[in-house]
Amino acid sequence: MQVELPALADILAAQARIRPHVHRTPVLTCRSLDEVVGARLFFKCENFQKIGAFKARGATNAVFSLTAEQAARGVLTHSSGNHGAALAYAARARGIAAWVVMPENASKVKQENVRRLGATIRLCAPTVAAREEACADVGRATGATLVHPFDDARVIAGQGTAALELIDDVPELEAIIAPVGGGGLLSGTAIVARSLVPGLRVLGAEPANADDAARSFRSGRVEPLPAATTIADGLRTTLAARTLTAIRANVEAIGTASEQAIVAAMRMTWERMKIVIEPSSAVPLASLLEQALDVRGKRVGVIVSGGNVDLDHLPWRA
Amino acid sequence: MQVELPALADILAAQARIRPHVHRTPVLTCRSLDEVVGARLFFKCENFQKIGAFKARGATNAVFSLTAEQAARGVLTHSSGNHGAALAYAARARGIAAWVVMPENASKVKQENVRRLGATIRLCAPTVAAREEACADVGRATGATLVHPFDDARVIAGQGTAALELIDDVPELEAIIAPVGGGGLLSGTAIVARSLVPGLRVLGAEPANADDAARSFRSGRVEPLPAATTIADGLRTTLAARTLTAIRANVEAIGTASEQAIVAAMRMTWERMKIVIEPSSAVPLASLLEQALDVRGKRVGVIVSGGNVDLDHLPWRA
Repeated sequence: MQVELPALADILAAQARIRPHVHRTPVLTCRSLDEVVGARLFFKCENFQKIGAFKARGATNAVFSLTAEQAARGVLTHSSGNHGAALAYAARARGIAAWVVMPENASKVKQENVRRLGATIRLCAPTVAAREEACADVGRATGATLVHPFDDARVIAGQGTAALELIDDVPELEAIIAPVGGGGLLSGTAIVARSLVPGLRVLGAEPANADDAARSFRSGRVEPLPAATTIADGLRTTLAARTLTAIRANVEAIGTASEQAIVAAMRMTWERMKIVIEPSSAVPLASLLEQALDVRGKRVGVIVSGGNVDLDHLPWRA
Repeated sequence: MQVELPALADILAAQARIRPHVHRTPVLTCRSLDEVVGARLFFKCENFQKIGAFKARGATNAVFSLTAEQAARGVLTHSSGNHGAALAYAARARGIAAWVVMPENASKVKQENVRRLGATIRLCAPTVAAREEACADVGRATGATLVHPFDDARVIAGQGTAALELIDDVPELEAIIAPVGGGGLLSGTAIVARSLVPGLRVLGAEPANADDAARSFRSGRVEPLPAATTIADGLRTTLAARTLTAIRANVEAIGTASEQAIVAAMRMTWERMKIVIEPSSAVPLASLLEQALDVRGKRVGVIVSGGNVDLDHLPWRA
């Protein structure tokens, strides 16, 4: 199958394009977590990114890649999570309209986040068919460009810019771990890492309860995800052929983590690093705690994908 | 009254002395909080400091200022909070013994923190008399040097190093705000700010429910604090004559904040900045939210004192 993927040059171009609109996030370390996992960890804190997640990078690159003519008709996506907020943010930064299709059962907080960023929300029934119909409908009515959360070369290029900064900031990295849902972040990370530093190991991490990426990685085709009952709500997505291709070509392994380990890793990060991270961001550390990935003694970059959490519903409260 | 206070030179010496043992913490900004308060805020993140609080600075300076002979007999303090952990940390760094007197009702978590850092805990009844007796007792038995949490020039010098870094990292600061409990942090901050940058305004912030510093600041003598019913447990202390002297000489004003504003500011910081801060650290922002201090339109450094919170008991849960 032929799919379009960004090359390193596209990711470098994305970096220059999005620089005025996104943060260069800090890299934090934590001696006590290092001791727990037996490796030197370098956390790339995308929880501090605009809209609280790395998604701001990909959406901004997509929006600022549009021609003036395309941009004038606005952008469109479906997302109940961070990508919707990211596209709204990027559209506002460029001064264009954005429509976000969300399921009716999306929380009020998430709807309010997107609305506050100036996007128009279109609610639909919580099914794939209803979502696709709503997107098609808005697209026909407005001419807006659809920006998919991960199945889009410009989005993948944008997500890869986090790894560019991480590699730039941390000398002699030996491995990088990113969480994997739809695979946009891991694809961009992998392309950067493998192009820039031969021998740098790229690893993915996902919940055992949503292990489609690990299965797809082994089988070579996009495996379905019948029911994703994981707390890591950002990772309840299957890969696309595009992201699977990038991942198969560049990633060494995908580790999985139990729900218990994800909650433990999330809490441990809050307590020891004093940063707020969302469950999806705890999955790489969780997979290290369960030794699903082996990086002992290595210098390891960990991409902390985001920090959007409902503080009224924390997972360590019954 | 004559009290010994550190001069700028002492604080510069402290910086060199403690550098191998403490973090140079990052300064974070948050556009959305800036909009809420109408100022440019620069948060000096001592929640990322060793042991999760600025207290590591003062304790480390005191411990590494001891002669070899003094050090050989160990150090001693009373604290149910961050200073106890800080002294334990500093003593371990120097390879000497530490004793921490704690009230019997101190939480198991806090006791465990201090014990894990290698200090010996001496429990006492939760009264000032019992505490002083226990300290005197340990001191007599061991010859350990007492390191007071704030009524100590070396401790104050250490706490001042956070402001040194903040002023170094942020050009053209116009004001600095620090929380005030016993006044060690505010004293050190004030001495640095006023010595280094003439005209830089230094402000304190404390809970309205523990407003002894504001009252002492006005009256010129250490006012008692009959009952401190504030969530900001790090600030339930009165000033010492030493810290009051430094504060009266160098601080422009002390603002107070309601409990409601403290909780709101704490939650807002977690949600928008994605950092874990303890209630005491939210008091400066809370006092800005309630306009108890006027810094509108200014560039303002805010010292985030610490991030040690019990995640099972968050204040926005009933």
